[in-house]
Amino acid sequence: MVNESSEWQRLAADVMERCDALARCSDEPGRITRLFCTPAMRDAHRLVSGWMEAAGMSGRCDAAGNLRGTYAPTGCDAKRCVVIGSHLDTVGDAGRYDGILGVMMGIAVVEAVRQANVALPWAMEVIGFSEEEGVRFRLPFIGSRALVGTFDPQLLTLCDDAGVSLGRALTAFGCDPHAIDACRVLEGEIVAYLEPHIEQGPLLEAVHQPLGVVTAIAGQTRLTVEWAGEGGHAGTAPMNLRNDPLPIAGRWAIAVEELARATPGLVATVGRFVVDPNVPNCIPRMVTASLDVRHQDDAVRIMAVAKLLALAEELAQGANLAVRVERQHEHAAVAMDVELTAGLAAAVTEVDAAPRLMVSGAGHDAGVVARAAPTAMLFLRSPGGVSHHPAEAVHAADVALGLEALVMFVKQLAAQSAAASR
Amino acid sequence: MVNESSEWQRLAADVMERCDALARCSDEPGRITRLFCTPAMRDAHRLVSGWMEAAGMSGRCDAAGNLRGTYAPTGCDAKRCVVIGSHLDTVGDAGRYDGILGVMMGIAVVEAVRQANVALPWAMEVIGFSEEEGVRFRLPFIGSRALVGTFDPQLLTLCDDAGVSLGRALTAFGCDPHAIDACRVLEGEIVAYLEPHIEQGPLLEAVHQPLGVVTAIAGQTRLTVEWAGEGGHAGTAPMNLRNDPLPIAGRWAIAVEELARATPGLVATVGRFVVDPNVPNCIPRMVTASLDVRHQDDAVRIMAVAKLLALAEELAQGANLAVRVERQHEHAAVAMDVELTAGLAAAVTEVDAAPRLMVSGAGHDAGVVARAAPTAMLFLRSPGGVSHHPAEAVHAADVALGLEALVMFVKQLAAQSAAASR
Repeated sequence: MVNESSEWQRLAADVMERCDALARCSDEPGRITRLFCTPAMRDAHRLVSGWMEAAGMSGRCDAAGNLRGTYAPTGCDAKRCVVIGSHLDTVGDAGRYDGILGVMMGIAVVEAVRQANVALPWAMEVIGFSEEEGVRFRLPFIGSRALVGTFDPQLLTLCDDAGVSLGRALTAFGCDPHAIDACRVLEGEIVAYLEPHIEQGPLLEAVHQPLGVVTAIAGQTRLTVEWAGEGGHAGTAPMNLRNDPLPIAGRWAIAVEELARATPGLVATVGRFVVDPNVPNCIPRMVTASLDVRHQDDAVRIMAVAKLLALAEELAQGANLAVRVERQHEHAAVAMDVELTAGLAAAVTEVDAAPRLMVSGAGHDAGVVARAAPTAMLFLRSPGGVSHHPAEAVHAADVALGLEALVMFVKQLAAQSAAASR
Repeated sequence: MVNESSEWQRLAADVMERCDALARCSDEPGRITRLFCTPAMRDAHRLVSGWMEAAGMSGRCDAAGNLRGTYAPTGCDAKRCVVIGSHLDTVGDAGRYDGILGVMMGIAVVEAVRQANVALPWAMEVIGFSEEEGVRFRLPFIGSRALVGTFDPQLLTLCDDAGVSLGRALTAFGCDPHAIDACRVLEGEIVAYLEPHIEQGPLLEAVHQPLGVVTAIAGQTRLTVEWAGEGGHAGTAPMNLRNDPLPIAGRWAIAVEELARATPGLVATVGRFVVDPNVPNCIPRMVTASLDVRHQDDAVRIMAVAKLLALAEELAQGANLAVRVERQHEHAAVAMDVELTAGLAAAVTEVDAAPRLMVSGAGHDAGVVARAAPTAMLFLRSPGGVSHHPAEAVHAADVALGLEALVMFVKQLAAQSAAASR
């Protein structure tokens, strides 16, 4: 018998060990930094390919630098597949689980499915996406965009800080950038895309649950507000002759927090706040504040942003300040596939307890793939809520539970598909 | 007849021209930057010495790098003197009037007194202090401290950014640092110290007055408050699990402004505001804010600081943040000499109108000298309130009025001294 409790623990231990091994593939000594198509990524591919083969998969690197392992047991329809994946790149000075954990769990799921000789009506594929974080070319989701055919070839001319183009980076990595379109999956080819990922937040830990199931990836607005006044000398300008933008920007930051606290599901953050000239004995001349707003319901987000921009304007007028708004980025919320999500939640309930259903505030490859194929996401508790930091963690016991739930779900999907085609 | 209206205009034109010429003595091409004991300062001394001699003074550089010109007409008691002075150093990328204007006006006053053959019971001295801004050694008032005997010789070991000690800088400039104590004036030697200076603030312009007379130099407290929370990802941490220090620091900055607006004569400024990590998609982990509080009444200032620190603490507790306060600097207010100040105000009233009596929020050499000798300060309107900036300005007509008032005041002082000694 495989799939005993101790078997999940053994598979989880492998996953943890492999995450540790990948953490040593880094572009920066002493830190975990693994960018798109770098020598560290080549090292990572070598390791992951080996693990894919050991799990019974044949691995290959596609034209977008994605590492893809296929398990197509005899009798399956190899033209359709269930994909488990996430990304292999990291931010600078990263932790060892963001992205990577999902790929390692995918390999472990295939290993368990193969060892249990589960009859599959389709193939399984594990994908390690080449670029999700967007560090090297300031362009996220290169890998998943290529998979679903939304990668714009004009982006191949983008250059990194060293002046190397995206196209040249791919070529140097052994990929053919002109064949990127061939990465694209056909309609109906992906039966289901499943992405396990650390939560990157404090919620599951706060409610003492190991696993969460994602219902949607939040839409997001990112913008910058800049208030400008006169500045002046902190000693010589009387209070009534000042128009200091700092207390005004402070009022706005307070309002951002208050609105988000009063609006269920809304998160809104002023994360960047830059004062010019930023000298103790100078009255601020200009304050620039960032705003990041996210919600699963685009209408709620758009309303909140409108309210906050109106307030920024109103505060500026009342204080004789010039105000300027720059919208940087906006994307709509992406719902996960309802049926797949319900099925995944049911599998989690069987191995543990009803999972926390939650919105992902962070973006994921799943958000890109969901536009082309049925998609579900499994979140694993993040101890301390830490992410994008060397202290990023995950409990091996949570990984074991996650693997058990995913394997059960794959079996159920297989049984359903088989029943449907009979 | 000298001292006609056109004569004041001619003298003021000289002053303006000399300020322009000094602006070309700079340590940085294309900017006005003239630090303590640099080649640019040597060039400035050469020019100013020439103008001192042309005005009938013999000039010398003392052991602290101060340029001192003496006019001792026959019959005067050369052991006593009326001093007019300010400083010849600048901040980086400075304007052309802060400090410099006072020295140039001193020379013009002596020139006018000599040309009018005013009988003086004492000598007159014009001092161009070597270092007031404190840029090179992060130590302000080197020149005036040496003059009044409060320069601590241990400070000679302080080093600039290039590792050159203050002592070595003085030696390289041709001064004998071990003779600094000899710069010290004897008790009673300075009958009056008068410092003309641009206001560096917007007040005189706002009330449409060319001249102000300073009653006190404000006391000052400078400190830093730091609030620390947990930080986290702007997308993944729900609002109720955050302890973001930014809105708290914002509340405090608002309270600082409100308290100062509600307290007559108080100026309080949060000029530096640093957010860590200061990234749009990260909840702030720490905010550090500076506080600069000034008032002519030390008790008012101390009470205000205590109130604001208590609030910083209270806000932190309410928001589950750690708080840390670092006091950087504190100095008491310095009152100007009452009799001298009243006399100067009377002279201004005669040539123009009753001057604005005002507190100087900025520090000046006059604040150091006032501890050792009767001191008064004349402020000249700053167009736009601009200071420490290339756009710093002064109206030639205001300079002419200032010169007329100062010469009238020197004549009155001379008459009073002569009457007192009869």
